[in-house]
Amino acid sequence: MNNETIQHQLNHRSIRAFKAQSLSPEDRNTLLEVARQTSTSNFFQQFSILHITDETKRQAIREISNQPYVGANGDLFIFVADLYRNQQIRQQKGLDDGRLHTTEVFFQAMQDATLAIQNMLVAAESMGLGAVLLGSINNQPKRLVQILELPKMTFPVLGIQIGVPDQAPQLKPRLPLDQLVFENGYPHEFSIEQLADYDEVVQTYYDLRNANQRIDSFTNQIAGAKLADGLLQRDEILEVLHAQGLCWR
Amino acid sequence: MNNETIQHQLNHRSIRAFKAQSLSPEDRNTLLEVARQTSTSNFFQQFSILHITDETKRQAIREISNQPYVGANGDLFIFVADLYRNQQIRQQKGLDDGRLHTTEVFFQAMQDATLAIQNMLVAAESMGLGAVLLGSINNQPKRLVQILELPKMTFPVLGIQIGVPDQAPQLKPRLPLDQLVFENGYPHEFSIEQLADYDEVVQTYYDLRNANQRIDSFTNQIAGAKLADGLLQRDEILEVLHAQGLCWR
Repeated sequence: MNNETIQHQLNHRSIRAFKAQSLSPEDRNTLLEVARQTSTSNFFQQFSILHITDETKRQAIREISNQPYVGANGDLFIFVADLYRNQQIRQQKGLDDGRLHTTEVFFQAMQDATLAIQNMLVAAESMGLGAVLLGSINNQPKRLVQILELPKMTFPVLGIQIGVPDQAPQLKPRLPLDQLVFENGYPHEFSIEQLADYDEVVQTYYDLRNANQRIDSFTNQIAGAKLADGLLQRDEILEVLHAQGLCWR
Repeated sequence: MNNETIQHQLNHRSIRAFKAQSLSPEDRNTLLEVARQTSTSNFFQQFSILHITDETKRQAIREISNQPYVGANGDLFIFVADLYRNQQIRQQKGLDDGRLHTTEVFFQAMQDATLAIQNMLVAAESMGLGAVLLGSINNQPKRLVQILELPKMTFPVLGIQIGVPDQAPQLKPRLPLDQLVFENGYPHEFSIEQLADYDEVVQTYYDLRNANQRIDSFTNQIAGAKLADGLLQRDEILEVLHAQGLCWR
């Protein structure tokens, strides 16, 4: 009943092992054209895409991400919230920067970048390619801005590694719809008991990243080390945004 | 050459006029299942979806958006960055809130919501439905939080109106790829002259929203009133985020 697009979307898996080949120029161009056609807030078109082919930069971003597949086999793209282009347009027309330093306009730019990268991911999967989104590029925001030579008014939002899959992970079970979708208002009553069945399901998933061991339950993951308090280098994010001229108010 | 998914993606138009019918329960469920299966940062699953069916709420959101098609024909969904669920899980396991108040974790939640809404949009278009993303729901952030009865640790990111298209807009011309995609680093040299040809192209586009008049060039739009400085109610965004317990550092 579902069409091909939806079948692919319902079968989405992040791919973290790729064959030793790059995208063909035709495929790469198609993926970029799809990203280009994505919805954009107010038609401001406030994102840009960096295709990282330089081996030194790929290695540096791999080190930041701390994931062996980043910048390895396949193609690496970084999607950037880009208010620089529009700042330049305004300045070269003799205008001030207007609302470009506001949080609200930065959020629009971050959303432009995020919508476009998801659109590209869907296109890649429809072509039989595999992909993984990379939040990990921002483990060290300051260093990444330097590596990418980003001017002020830009900020790297997400990366994506795309290539020919060399693994076939299980479908990872998500929160049931009745815990994710609500009618008209958000339910304030929440009991961890609601997730008991789901917790069981999650434990049946085998993560290829961890030597084929089952993973911990969802609520145990949320209670775990990743969300525990502590100052990480990732917390540079606000400092870097402000230094980049973004989110000033 | 392009497959069906990509043909739809390359033909993306925002639809702002819908026939007077709601989604069938089957179609709605399929769209929600697609959103559910979207990539999520760290498997934290930090978004929720509100389906707005109550006529009073639809009208209130339409007033905020200041767009006649919002909450009118078709279905309205609001995608929410949701750190409340994970806060509750941690608290009910006797833990502190960990990193949930950081900007970095909020950005992950905002990205979760944004990735999922784009995935849903692609699915809708593949089914022959039309959709438009609604940044305008945040014209009045405080009021929207009240209308949706959102608890702390949540924030409405984007809306989407989906239905059976009752218009056929032109494809809106986007920035050329050579102005959008760069190799290895961001080019600091930018001259508005680079966009002269594109400006011409944009002026050939007829916007159905403005009585079939041609639209202004891209650079004139960027120089125009929408990005001009001034305190808007939209600028409540940081205040509301902080009041919601988000982005504290």
